[in-house]
Amino acid sequence: MSFAEEAASDVPTLPGTHSGIPTYLLEKARKAKGGIFETRTKPRAERQRLPVVPQGIERDAFLQALAELKEELGAENLEVNDKPLTDGWYMEHPNTHDMMTILDEEELVASAVVYPGSTEEVQQIVAWANKHRIPIFPISMGRNLGYGGAAPRVRGSVTIDLGKRMNKILDINPEDFTCLVEPGVSFYALYEAIQAKGYDHMWIDSPDLGGGSVIGNTVDRGVGYTPYGDHWACHAGLEVVLPTGEVIRTGMGALPGNNTWQTFPYGFGPYSDGIFSQSNFGIVTKMGMTLMPNPGGYESFMYTFPKEEDLAPLMEIIRPLRISNILENVAQLRHVSQSIAARGLPRSTFYTGSGPVPSSILHAEAAKSPVGDHTWAYYGMAYGPSHIRAHKLALIDSEFRKIPGARKIDPSTLPADEYFWSRDRVAAGIPDIQELRWVNWTPNGAHVAFSPVSPIRGTDATALFELGKKRHEQYGIDFWPAFCVGLREMHLIVEIVFDRHDLERKTAALACLRDMVDDAARLGYGEYRTHLVLMDQVAGTYSWGDGALMKFNEKIKDALDPNGILAPGRCGIWPRRYRGRGWEMTRESGLVSEGRGVEMD
Amino acid sequence: MSFAEEAASDVPTLPGTHSGIPTYLLEKARKAKGGIFETRTKPRAERQRLPVVPQGIERDAFLQALAELKEELGAENLEVNDKPLTDGWYMEHPNTHDMMTILDEEELVASAVVYPGSTEEVQQIVAWANKHRIPIFPISMGRNLGYGGAAPRVRGSVTIDLGKRMNKILDINPEDFTCLVEPGVSFYALYEAIQAKGYDHMWIDSPDLGGGSVIGNTVDRGVGYTPYGDHWACHAGLEVVLPTGEVIRTGMGALPGNNTWQTFPYGFGPYSDGIFSQSNFGIVTKMGMTLMPNPGGYESFMYTFPKEEDLAPLMEIIRPLRISNILENVAQLRHVSQSIAARGLPRSTFYTGSGPVPSSILHAEAAKSPVGDHTWAYYGMAYGPSHIRAHKLALIDSEFRKIPGARKIDPSTLPADEYFWSRDRVAAGIPDIQELRWVNWTPNGAHVAFSPVSPIRGTDATALFELGKKRHEQYGIDFWPAFCVGLREMHLIVEIVFDRHDLERKTAALACLRDMVDDAARLGYGEYRTHLVLMDQVAGTYSWGDGALMKFNEKIKDALDPNGILAPGRCGIWPRRYRGRGWEMTRESGLVSEGRGVEMD
Repeated sequence: MSFAEEAASDVPTLPGTHSGIPTYLLEKARKAKGGIFETRTKPRAERQRLPVVPQGIERDAFLQALAELKEELGAENLEVNDKPLTDGWYMEHPNTHDMMTILDEEELVASAVVYPGSTEEVQQIVAWANKHRIPIFPISMGRNLGYGGAAPRVRGSVTIDLGKRMNKILDINPEDFTCLVEPGVSFYALYEAIQAKGYDHMWIDSPDLGGGSVIGNTVDRGVGYTPYGDHWACHAGLEVVLPTGEVIRTGMGALPGNNTWQTFPYGFGPYSDGIFSQSNFGIVTKMGMTLMPNPGGYESFMYTFPKEEDLAPLMEIIRPLRISNILENVAQLRHVSQSIAARGLPRSTFYTGSGPVPSSILHAEAAKSPVGDHTWAYYGMAYGPSHIRAHKLALIDSEFRKIPGARKIDPSTLPADEYFWSRDRVAAGIPDIQELRWVNWTPNGAHVAFSPVSPIRGTDATALFELGKKRHEQYGIDFWPAFCVGLREMHLIVEIVFDRHDLERKTAALACLRDMVDDAARLGYGEYRTHLVLMDQVAGTYSWGDGALMKFNEKIKDALDPNGILAPGRCGIWPRRYRGRGWEMTRESGLVSEGRGVEMD
Repeated sequence: MSFAEEAASDVPTLPGTHSGIPTYLLEKARKAKGGIFETRTKPRAERQRLPVVPQGIERDAFLQALAELKEELGAENLEVNDKPLTDGWYMEHPNTHDMMTILDEEELVASAVVYPGSTEEVQQIVAWANKHRIPIFPISMGRNLGYGGAAPRVRGSVTIDLGKRMNKILDINPEDFTCLVEPGVSFYALYEAIQAKGYDHMWIDSPDLGGGSVIGNTVDRGVGYTPYGDHWACHAGLEVVLPTGEVIRTGMGALPGNNTWQTFPYGFGPYSDGIFSQSNFGIVTKMGMTLMPNPGGYESFMYTFPKEEDLAPLMEIIRPLRISNILENVAQLRHVSQSIAARGLPRSTFYTGSGPVPSSILHAEAAKSPVGDHTWAYYGMAYGPSHIRAHKLALIDSEFRKIPGARKIDPSTLPADEYFWSRDRVAAGIPDIQELRWVNWTPNGAHVAFSPVSPIRGTDATALFELGKKRHEQYGIDFWPAFCVGLREMHLIVEIVFDRHDLERKTAALACLRDMVDDAARLGYGEYRTHLVLMDQVAGTYSWGDGALMKFNEKIKDALDPNGILAPGRCGIWPRRYRGRGWEMTRESGLVSEGRGVEMD
């Protein structure tokens, strides 16, 4: 079978859409150059031959290569993805695809999954991929919810599920306040191990959801909610398998016999760690992480503010408090709509119409929550002994009360299952998953995130709020803005929850996201992280100097990965053999370029 | 004239040494492979034809290339280094060499210096260097004292003095607490600009000496003494000219129209900044830096501790206080010998014998200082309003007093010129240069630093102290240890001050440094930064996995700088055409590999 036929036979199609792209864009694409797209629109009946074979290799050669790898790693450590994606199988095998996919569920799926048990086995897999030119896609635990989950960027890639067997906490150092972990260590596991050892002088930092991998989250530059919330800034030392199979240790890890790998991140010479975050330049197999000293006390607090228009003046108040570290953790200002969703009730409880839940209904529901008749809820935490906390809390109180009607909520009035306590746990470094309850909003709930970065300023907050609100209204989507203030910047985090069986809603969600990315870029805002299907588009917005940064990234990619086998397309970086074929992403059309052609050798 | 003759004609020689390398090592080298070395030992009279021509290009072609560049940039923006290095000229032109050289003063010198006035002109110079295959060496202001000053790694390189004309503060943002600077902006200049604007709500952070470039220090990963002391961690956004001439902006700088370049360092995709620190992968032409909020009060404190043996228990006390941020700035524990030297009196004031000043004399001198009859002095600062400071100072006091005989010095008893006040200024973000007074220790004083990294532990402090003391005694050098505690690690900083006209002392200093680097590596300690002449050796100690990290660095170097023109050899990274010719650095002999052969095209 030829390459073109192969490609054609693998591609799912559903009426009215292709890959979740709205029909009118599909039509536009058909007229565009490239060719690949046309070959992918065969009827569904003709294409269902699993496993999905990655483009650029014949089916027989691929199956033989898999057999070879199975031989090397042991039969139990390679699984072919040859079951239909029925819901039961789907949920049991979350490492082959995005459990919350916004595309057709069979679009970004793996052809097979391998489970290395050591760095050496990762090297073997990489050597194998180079030999056969097969795209591989490493995941730590595949819990990148909202940004693509476990799905590979290129359909039919072989997923390396690092976490299943490489899940050891290699060291917890109670003197240096550091640890060394493998990819399969979750925030929960790390937390529990520290508790089990009785090290109550050390805290971890957890993101909103504690079930993910410490390495995975950090390498994707995720954040948490203690003062150690900037995970990337808090890591120290990497072990990385390069795309050509060599292993390096960064920082002090490169010095034989050192005892500083986890205490001094930089080492000597170029500080290379950064290029292994949000990239496809290497596979992180070990990572050091610093642990926060128990601050000697902590106290969550919550304020609410009445009006949507309070947003701008509030940001002006938050900025100096946050930069001065009076607000000590990621400051979070959440819209009432988002606080309600996080309680976990289905939208149908309040409203059964189409389009966004009307404001009046939202506020009626909010009246039953601590937010009451207000619009914004601020969740924060003060750290340290009580007299130190009192100093900071007094400053915060006098500033926040400058907003007319500002209300401080007394935590003792809140029931145990109130969302406030989830924020409290997370800000105290205790992993939690309550946040995820918002997927109950719809049947078959899934979510995807839009996360633009801006300065901490009223004008910027307002601009992003208006931008998001307008597009959500246009596409009939509930708008849940939450502003997370890092230190000098904030991320607006907008989670769109959709029914992953409802094609029309998925299409709308993706179109809304694409429009928001473009709208934001026009105003000078860019995303700090994004979903697989938006990576080309987002990367395309970082285009200063005629795309100079991407050209630079591609140069590094080609030098480190000459065969282009490691996670092609991740973060918009395509290796040489994938470039210049298929169609190029155009910001105007909002096209995804997944399924790019691969040059045959 | 042939390449070999050319090389021979340029090389300075002095009786008994070559390039500051002790005679016995010179003999060893003569027997070693390579050839280059032998050709460089012609009598002094035969070689003095300035300018020094870089290896690999004919003199006439080089002079013609310089003329071409002069034409492009304007005659006033290119200076040929054709004056003899007499002391007067030497001091007036500190951008052609290391003012504190530990080698022969004509060894690591530039052939010419160019003064670009813009990023575009830096690009022009880079294009010119690629055309003619001429090594270029960028400096910001050339104030990298103790680590090589302005000297290029490869003799005869064309120095790009960025700072002379590119010295603008492009932005100071009083809301975001950030600034954007060019390479010629010193810590003094930045401080003064902020003062002039009346922005007393913002502090800068300065290293020990405030006269250097903010960019230069940061890119070399230097540190300062406020809570913003980790300069690299505090920068945000780079503009970089790549070795092939393209310009990139990192982080949010890659997004056209952004207003977050200085507020969010990471951007989207690989975070590339790190590979432009301590490297030769690009020329930083702009850098964002965060500014510290005025903490609302500050208070320096000083403790002294009686015995050398107090070092180990003190470190055990310091570690948790520092990691918990009770000690808020780089904690500094300085040996009495170093405190005395920093007062700026010549050694001959106390002692005229050879070898290290005897301990009894040191202590007699110390008796006149606040250190009195004690051995260690701790300099620290507490930040914040008085009741917040009081909380931390009380904790510190109760911990420090666990060392028998610990003494707290009352600052009000100290005269205005006491070294304590220099530490006080620096820790309050006020640039200072008193530290440099120690070069008065000898006539023609110069200094060079040894800076190994270790965990903050008594055993490590003792091991490094003993290692340094033994080698200093062996070479008859005064030993001035100072431990600087970053957060989870400390740097032992040992400054060796020598008479740069005294060859025997220079030779001893270099041999002492080389031995200490090797001794430290055997114990698992590596340097965080080093002098030009030690770069190969130090890089060689980061050898894990058969030198995997260096091979990785070389791969990046070759991809970004195919012609090998940018700062060859910096931090031990040699471009392809310099590798495998000449002799290789061997840790055993301690040889410098400067003057490596260049493959002719």
